[in-house]
Amino acid sequence: MKSSSSSVEEISLQQVDILNAADDAFGGVVVEMKEPMNSDLFDTLLRASISQWREQGKKGIWLKLPIELANLVEAAVKQGFWYHHAEPTYIMLAYWIPETVHTLPANASHTVGIGAFIMNSKREILVVQENNGRFKGSGLWKLPTGTVDVGEDICEAAIREVKEETGINAEFMELLAVRQSHKVSFGKSDLFFACMLRPLSFDIQKQDSEIAAAKWMPFEEYAAQPYMQKNEHFNYIAKICAAKIENDYTGFCALPATAASSRRRKSCLYFNNQEGLVVPSNISSE
Amino acid sequence: MKSSSSSVEEISLQQVDILNAADDAFGGVVVEMKEPMNSDLFDTLLRASISQWREQGKKGIWLKLPIELANLVEAAVKQGFWYHHAEPTYIMLAYWIPETVHTLPANASHTVGIGAFIMNSKREILVVQENNGRFKGSGLWKLPTGTVDVGEDICEAAIREVKEETGINAEFMELLAVRQSHKVSFGKSDLFFACMLRPLSFDIQKQDSEIAAAKWMPFEEYAAQPYMQKNEHFNYIAKICAAKIENDYTGFCALPATAASSRRRKSCLYFNNQEGLVVPSNISSE
Repeated sequence: MKSSSSSVEEISLQQVDILNAADDAFGGVVVEMKEPMNSDLFDTLLRASISQWREQGKKGIWLKLPIELANLVEAAVKQGFWYHHAEPTYIMLAYWIPETVHTLPANASHTVGIGAFIMNSKREILVVQENNGRFKGSGLWKLPTGTVDVGEDICEAAIREVKEETGINAEFMELLAVRQSHKVSFGKSDLFFACMLRPLSFDIQKQDSEIAAAKWMPFEEYAAQPYMQKNEHFNYIAKICAAKIENDYTGFCALPATAASSRRRKSCLYFNNQEGLVVPSNISSE
Repeated sequence: MKSSSSSVEEISLQQVDILNAADDAFGGVVVEMKEPMNSDLFDTLLRASISQWREQGKKGIWLKLPIELANLVEAAVKQGFWYHHAEPTYIMLAYWIPETVHTLPANASHTVGIGAFIMNSKREILVVQENNGRFKGSGLWKLPTGTVDVGEDICEAAIREVKEETGINAEFMELLAVRQSHKVSFGKSDLFFACMLRPLSFDIQKQDSEIAAAKWMPFEEYAAQPYMQKNEHFNYIAKICAAKIENDYTGFCALPATAASSRRRKSCLYFNNQEGLVVPSNISSE
């Protein structure tokens, strides 16, 4: 016998038996698992959830599993989820309900690095030899380089890397050039930003773990190294630096967003301010 | 009773009972699982393998599991592996044997996008309204924008997006500005490249799925939109475009690596060629 109260109960039971999910802004849902769960129970709940989301016309399903819940990965994959991205502490899986090609955003595609061109008043530039990597033991003196971390401004990364590798304090002046390369780390692409910095200190204290040697070297000697001649892009970056020394080159200065316009997120714009689009006090440049 | 022949047998058995691994260039090993395996057997082999790699003084262990082998993820995590990165078809786990902080490279940190500034001879620029995203329904006319795919040159992505969204054929002229933002997608950072293109065709055929409307619009009308005034970086990009129209602005041209220097990988350098560092025939610019 069906009564209205039992119908209500059935509905509420049905509602309990799916995973907690939040709607996203694109007609999909986000499930963030936090508490430990038996993989069989998870399998059952996930199946019921997908069924309900399908009835509701949902599109993309995001499933975030912390690494502690690695026991649930297999069940999700068996139900058709794929890996979207992973970080040390979690994996994000995705599922697309409609019968169309999915329109979910792509995972991060690029690593980002910097190289720092930094010269003292004697036209000597700061150079290093590395303990690791492709130039180890080659005798090549190169600009200090490093990786830009997630959430880190390019201009700040350049200052940090110079300080870490050589102990030199410096300030950011200009973005001189950008190089994009492909298939660098794990098939991803890479963006390398050649930056000009101005030294604020001069005594080198090299970092022992990464750096075999560091010194101030006459620019001409740096640019004359055989490898600089052989590699086209190294060669052009050296030419750009030489032009910069002679005041014959204008790169991009850095304009951080002011507090008023950066409510959504922190950001920084790099552009050529030669014609004075912005008054100099607002920007990080000469 | 120990005989030399049984010792040899024991050693050879021991060698068989670890996972196939290749040495990497940094004192570590890479395991790429391909064939299905029971998770208990995998657990046993992985344990024996780590033990042997530890004795050999190995450092970082990379473990690549195709999504078909999702059943092995939990066993690896239980033995101390963490997630390094994942793509739709696989997950890469990592493990660090030494008692030191690991020096494994970071996962990709940035998404990359482009915006295309493209003007006809009547000083009208190509603008669109989008079907999705933060400006949907706002009435804002904006530059065509899009995502740079892994392995795709920024200058090629700008041409492709303009073609896809509006049907217009165009050629790359200059990189006008770069904006870096943080916490954009899944906590990652984003690099946005404002590019100037030259139109090679003029009849608009808009893409229906992503684009609500597309047209040629007088530049002054575009720049006078309230949002352009309110958002500092949009405002500066509009100012940069205005300066470019008046020939008062120099961005970065694109110099692809020549075949001789690109043996390692494809790459493209963007820099200011105003002073003629490179003869114009070699570069993608005016």
